[in-house]
Amino acid sequence: MSTTETVTILEVGPRDGFQNVKPEIPTKDKVRIIDLLSDAGLKRIEVSSFVHPKVIPQLKDAAEVFAQIRKARGVSYSVLIPNAKGLERAIEAGVKEVVYVVSASDSISRQVFNKSTSEALTGLSSIAEEAGRSRTSLRGVIACSFGSPVEGEVTVEGVIEIAREFQKMSVFEISLADSLGVASPRQVREFFSKFLREVSNVPVSVHFHDTGGIGLANVYSAFETGVSIFESSIAGLGGDPLTPEAPGNVATEGVVSMFDKMGVRTGVDLDSLLRCAETVKETLMRIAKIEYPPRDLRELTSIAHFGK
Amino acid sequence: MSTTETVTILEVGPRDGFQNVKPEIPTKDKVRIIDLLSDAGLKRIEVSSFVHPKVIPQLKDAAEVFAQIRKARGVSYSVLIPNAKGLERAIEAGVKEVVYVVSASDSISRQVFNKSTSEALTGLSSIAEEAGRSRTSLRGVIACSFGSPVEGEVTVEGVIEIAREFQKMSVFEISLADSLGVASPRQVREFFSKFLREVSNVPVSVHFHDTGGIGLANVYSAFETGVSIFESSIAGLGGDPLTPEAPGNVATEGVVSMFDKMGVRTGVDLDSLLRCAETVKETLMRIAKIEYPPRDLRELTSIAHFGK
Repeated sequence: MSTTETVTILEVGPRDGFQNVKPEIPTKDKVRIIDLLSDAGLKRIEVSSFVHPKVIPQLKDAAEVFAQIRKARGVSYSVLIPNAKGLERAIEAGVKEVVYVVSASDSISRQVFNKSTSEALTGLSSIAEEAGRSRTSLRGVIACSFGSPVEGEVTVEGVIEIAREFQKMSVFEISLADSLGVASPRQVREFFSKFLREVSNVPVSVHFHDTGGIGLANVYSAFETGVSIFESSIAGLGGDPLTPEAPGNVATEGVVSMFDKMGVRTGVDLDSLLRCAETVKETLMRIAKIEYPPRDLRELTSIAHFGK
Repeated sequence: MSTTETVTILEVGPRDGFQNVKPEIPTKDKVRIIDLLSDAGLKRIEVSSFVHPKVIPQLKDAAEVFAQIRKARGVSYSVLIPNAKGLERAIEAGVKEVVYVVSASDSISRQVFNKSTSEALTGLSSIAEEAGRSRTSLRGVIACSFGSPVEGEVTVEGVIEIAREFQKMSVFEISLADSLGVASPRQVREFFSKFLREVSNVPVSVHFHDTGGIGLANVYSAFETGVSIFESSIAGLGGDPLTPEAPGNVATEGVVSMFDKMGVRTGVDLDSLLRCAETVKETLMRIAKIEYPPRDLRELTSIAHFGK
């Protein structure tokens, strides 16, 4: 049963979506879209990543984007940081909220982040210390919280252990990401029944992909189990630059529409959001000449790959 | 909580999907796709509608389709009938299971079926009588069970009343259709908490559309409330020929993938189904030259229209 009638939507499209678009979206278009997102009422937006430009060239303009967006009152603009160097650049740029990712899947951690899960946790302590010194809020993401391609590698207990490490480092929020889009609504219910019993005193958010259209079912299931912060991506952008078969993130307009229908407040105006989604699509078609929406056989193949 | 670990999928794409494709799909392609659906393990397929060819020319070959499909063992092939004449043609064609629709929304009933809800119910008794005489199974669909554009027009109590009329006429199953794609998972839960208490001794199925990606959330919610028969449409085809802004049906491959992930048996092979969905898309692109998938701004606009 739901325990809340207000939810928070955390828009991650400008980071998680834009990083997948080739050729990269011009800075001014990114800024325009982020401003439209805050206009629509979104109070939390992940705007870019201070990752090395060679790793994700699409986000090499992170500092420029952050400098140029209109800092709307009451909106928090966060960035992802992969390491201490990223944090340093983010602080220089004036960012007040950073996001650090630890993968619950050791194999995916090595493949995607080029370090083991325990190395990522080791890196965390110096980052937390530096963030604390510079009064930068630190948010912790646990990637692959709902599974990885390696059978049995990820368990709720393992995820809880990482969450406890994050709590020791005073993160202000913990995000559980279904990075590979493998979760089912039943699994989500069982996961949070355990997780929320063990991890308390810290806000918890979730990040779902839309494999085969399952995204909102997982959002609904998490909501019913007591989660009230949802990451989503305008126009369903997203995926994983290193996992081409991963489907896009759950679409912000879909999440808001569902909660609107359920009478749950999001603070976001759906009509403005739909216009923003249209702008995103026009931009993608103009700049990147990609076909939109990218829901094709590749996505269906990913169901077959991860779905069973 | 779920009370079942096996669900039944009722494929409606050949009727609800093909009726929306212009120009119409050639009979041999329809037959090929229906045979692929039974090959994939689907045990119930709604193959066409014996509606007047002037109303839905795309389904004017209903008798030919029914004659030419391979009648796989253990598979029931049903058709929709709008009236006594349709039932007569269906019986002549050798159909053993027919579907009759009554809309819970009087305004939509008049607009789409050209008769009031009570006229549709009046027509039901002679149809049930004739179906009984000819040993044809009769299935009852209640369209717009979850709402209509007219505020307050549809209530759970009103739907229950229609269901009782259907029960008096010995239908073997009652289907509750979200014909306009307006339902939310919370509403679905509340609906079935009441409905299943009042209407028992008859199997109940549901039919959802995928407005803004909400389809599987509604399927999950209905499943958790005790429903175990789900209508869906291969490749997410569907919509409503008279309601152009209505989104497609929830996709069969998405429903099967979700239940696979949840460890719930469907009896359908996902890989075969995905190949079938690919065939459907190829067929649509070749024959109808329509862009696939048809998830575009029109769909998003329908969220804005019905979503709030």
